[in-house]
Amino acid sequence: MPLPTVEERLRALEDREAIRNLIASYGPLADSGNAEAVAALWVEDGSYAVGGMTEAKGRAAIAALIDGDTHRALMAAGCAHLLGPVAIDLDGDRAVARGHSVVFRKTPSGFEVWRVSANRWELVRTDDGWRVERRVNTPLDGSEVAQALLR
Amino acid sequence: MPLPTVEERLRALEDREAIRNLIASYGPLADSGNAEAVAALWVEDGSYAVGGMTEAKGRAAIAALIDGDTHRALMAAGCAHLLGPVAIDLDGDRAVARGHSVVFRKTPSGFEVWRVSANRWELVRTDDGWRVERRVNTPLDGSEVAQALLR
Amino acid sequence: MPLPTVEERLRALEDREAIRNLIASYGPLADSGNAEAVAALWVEDGSYAVGGMTEAKGRAAIAALIDGDTHRALMAAGCAHLLGPVAIDLDGDRAVARGHSVVFRKTPSGFEVWRVSANRWELVRTDDGWRVERRVNTPLDGSEVAQALLR
Repeated sequence: MPLPTVEERLRALEDREAIRNLIASYGPLADSGNAEAVAALWVEDGSYAVGGMTEAKGRAAIAALIDGDTHRALMAAGCAHLLGPVAIDLDGDRAVARGHSVVFRKTPSGFEVWRVSANRWELVRTDDGWRVERRVNTPLDGSEVAQALLR
Repeated sequence: MPLPTVEERLRALEDREAIRNLIASYGPLADSGNAEAVAALWVEDGSYAVGGMTEAKGRAAIAALIDGDTHRALMAAGCAHLLGPVAIDLDGDRAVARGHSVVFRKTPSGFEVWRVSANRWELVRTDDGWRVERRVNTPLDGSEVAQALLR
Repeated sequence: MPLPTVEERLRALEDREAIRNLIASYGPLADSGNAEAVAALWVEDGSYAVGGMTEAKGRAAIAALIDGDTHRALMAAGCAHLLGPVAIDLDGDRAVARGHSVVFRKTPSGFEVWRVSANRWELVRTDDGWRVERRVNTPLDGSEVAQALLR
């Protein structure tokens, strides 16, 4: 196998940096209620399977999660969608990232840990840069399904 | 617009890496009580508006936060200033990074989540590398002020 | 001192990226019970001093931590080994990374913060890429030993 060129090495570093930054944008955008900007992290027909319950398909449906009653109530009480670092497998124009997410929320007696989940992000290179094609998020409640997302 | 050169691309990657590492240093330095090293993450006249309460201006004032009674008591009980990943907007010699922070502390009955905050970091390139010019940290308690920091 | 070459600058960026990704892999691999893949993050005779209690020496001993009763019970209940960002000091073929880790676990009444620790990772470049030579993990319970790991 020939050694990678400088161009290829730069490209791989830029790809990984772009993916990391894209995923790091999710929490801040979600917790500031920026529904359109959250949705724009995904490709137009991307999907977000959240909490092992529902799957939002397409940017409008993803934006509706952020604009919806559940998320708005969380924000009004005080919440943070904290992500852990992601392990990224890059393969040309596609990538998979794996990591944890934790939702903290404020209650009258202080902050509590509301949900702790496994996440699998499937990403794709587009003309506008890297975007999420699919994110699957499932609570780490002992279920095999959630654990499998981290593999 | 001309394509960026190899030099420009390397520089952008190094800048983002330096900023990420600088911010990642905050928690470990704070929780080991290294007041001078914490302060040196900022420019000489940098500021740190913390907890929506007080604003420390200048390195001496920032070091005093770490050497102060509140932080020393937290450290003696056991504490961790955990940051989430930051989304970085780089613009030449300046940058803005946004992300969450969580303070855990140990109590007689175990670890608890003490504070969950939004953070906006304003950074600047100096002759000694990237430094923080201003950090604003505000609890995510439902207030619009905290949410706006993440936008 | 001569300016670093493009090759040297690329290499440093790739090294830091590889180290960050290696460490980010720990949590997902541990929480999916992938004992062999966890152990393979270390060099063959690497060590993992965990929780201020025991030190696993060698890949087989590290894998046994993941396959052991304590970790298996945590996984069955629901758990997440979340890491914070690491501050990386790179020095040729060796590196040190410092950061926090938090273990969340599910209980009948919801998720709780079980353990919050300081971590020092000592890493080495091998023919197969960067690997962990030693990780020391100690609870941040106010002890000087844990704080010193973050310095």
